[in-house]
Amino acid sequence: MLNILFAAKSEKWTEYEAPLKEAFAAHGLEVTLSTDMAADVVDYIIYAPNSGLDDFTPFTHCKAVLNLWAGVEDVVGNPTLTMPLARMVDPGLTEGMVEYVTGHVLRHHLGMDAHITNPDRAWIDTPPPLARDRKVAILGLGALGSACASALAALNFDVHGWSRSAKDVTGVTCHAGDAGLMSAVDGAHFIVLLMPLTPETENLISTDVMCRFAPGACLINPGRGPLIDDEALLAALDTGEVAHATLDVFRTEPLPPEHPFWSDPKITVTPHIASTTRPASAARTIAANIAGHERGEPLRNLVDRGKGY
Amino acid sequence: MLNILFAAKSEKWTEYEAPLKEAFAAHGLEVTLSTDMAADVVDYIIYAPNSGLDDFTPFTHCKAVLNLWAGVEDVVGNPTLTMPLARMVDPGLTEGMVEYVTGHVLRHHLGMDAHITNPDRAWIDTPPPLARDRKVAILGLGALGSACASALAALNFDVHGWSRSAKDVTGVTCHAGDAGLMSAVDGAHFIVLLMPLTPETENLISTDVMCRFAPGACLINPGRGPLIDDEALLAALDTGEVAHATLDVFRTEPLPPEHPFWSDPKITVTPHIASTTRPASAARTIAANIAGHERGEPLRNLVDRGKGY
Repeated sequence: MLNILFAAKSEKWTEYEAPLKEAFAAHGLEVTLSTDMAADVVDYIIYAPNSGLDDFTPFTHCKAVLNLWAGVEDVVGNPTLTMPLARMVDPGLTEGMVEYVTGHVLRHHLGMDAHITNPDRAWIDTPPPLARDRKVAILGLGALGSACASALAALNFDVHGWSRSAKDVTGVTCHAGDAGLMSAVDGAHFIVLLMPLTPETENLISTDVMCRFAPGACLINPGRGPLIDDEALLAALDTGEVAHATLDVFRTEPLPPEHPFWSDPKITVTPHIASTTRPASAARTIAANIAGHERGEPLRNLVDRGKGY
Repeated sequence: MLNILFAAKSEKWTEYEAPLKEAFAAHGLEVTLSTDMAADVVDYIIYAPNSGLDDFTPFTHCKAVLNLWAGVEDVVGNPTLTMPLARMVDPGLTEGMVEYVTGHVLRHHLGMDAHITNPDRAWIDTPPPLARDRKVAILGLGALGSACASALAALNFDVHGWSRSAKDVTGVTCHAGDAGLMSAVDGAHFIVLLMPLTPETENLISTDVMCRFAPGACLINPGRGPLIDDEALLAALDTGEVAHATLDVFRTEPLPPEHPFWSDPKITVTPHIASTTRPASAARTIAANIAGHERGEPLRNLVDRGKGY
């Protein structure tokens, strides 16, 4: 019998209780799953960083913390969290992100906005270029970035990827490290941000980086708000160096109604809906990870505290 | 030495002359390629139905007519055209169509329009469903329809295809014939029209067909304008049976400014830009077909006059 604490907002318990119980049963695990139990009997914690639980010290027998979110920046620096920490890698989250990124890259590639709103009834029948003549830069080649890069490569885009350490993704030209960033974005028409948020990536999308984009480039950020230097972005949109930005994540959410992003016609705000963890598939991921760990396998999707993701 | 007549509008000659000469040279074919030559010496005609050439009788030694367009409805019924007729199957045309169809299906799937124009700055952070929970019907499984169906299946959509005669496309549930049409569209969220225009397909998208769609369905027509019963579509949009239509082709083009499609907020008009034949790749297709035919191989992409495509 395993004691598993579910530490997240109460509405998440409503969503997750049944899928988690089903997933544990499917692995033959006998568990007590609860939002409230004595700390010193807890074997595993299923955790959301906005749960209110900040002090892991009392969980003296806890074998691992399984994050419900893909991003761990709000928990990775917690000095009381000394047990292993796993990121969420959810097939549903990945699929949703691929759909959002592919959809918005194609939207900008095809110039859809000019047709969706066309008060002058303009008929300009020049087809767009082919995807094979358009460079896409995917910054961040984790589970989400790699999947998006592959999907866009399958549509014949000239896809370049960038990550801190060297990666290999079929059909994608991969760049790494500080120097690689500039090669990845150089002349890119569409730039997609899917890096983890760390001290190194905060404000990474600066004037210096944006001035390397192709003329008329579009920036898409479904990653984390602080990856972009907001003032630099507004300036680049103003001068036309960047033609459009589609942003799903922000330093403050919901984005305050008075924020300048709302009123800039070159910015599309999407309300943090690019993707989300889906209870059914996330519950299966968590149960599989705990079941494997109980059999003596290493914890999957383990966070590297040094790197911060 | 082969004599090849290029019969299309003069601006097409400007686009095609160099790519065609290059493509013939690449196949080692010695050709005289011209927009004007004695009819009885012509070996092949490269043909656009709006060229003005309607009487094929004088071309007594012509071995085949190679259409520059994917659609042949304006030439297939010409009784003077007794030689073999080939449709255009151009990789560039196919790629462009896949990009348009995938892009607009994802646009509707993700509900993008509500974010692209959002004057109230509404923040409704419910993510869209996953593609795997959405049914797409691709009507017409020729080169274009099959490629679009495969691309959407790769994004996990539940893709159903329909064609007159039974087809087999990996990852796609294929339906055929009159009864199959209703199975294909039944409960579909996104319906894409890529059938050839024939007497049987004209006005095929009627009230009877549209009432089988899922509630909130979106219709996408990058095929041919007359496939849809226009009045029935306007009525279905009015009652909400169809939530949105994105139309690229029309009975009259450019779509006249006073046409009701322009003023219906539930219709997006795109100006016949879903895809087009690209000179470089189309020229290679034509040269390869003629070169093969000269070696004794059957003409590729041969039109069946009985079926009309």
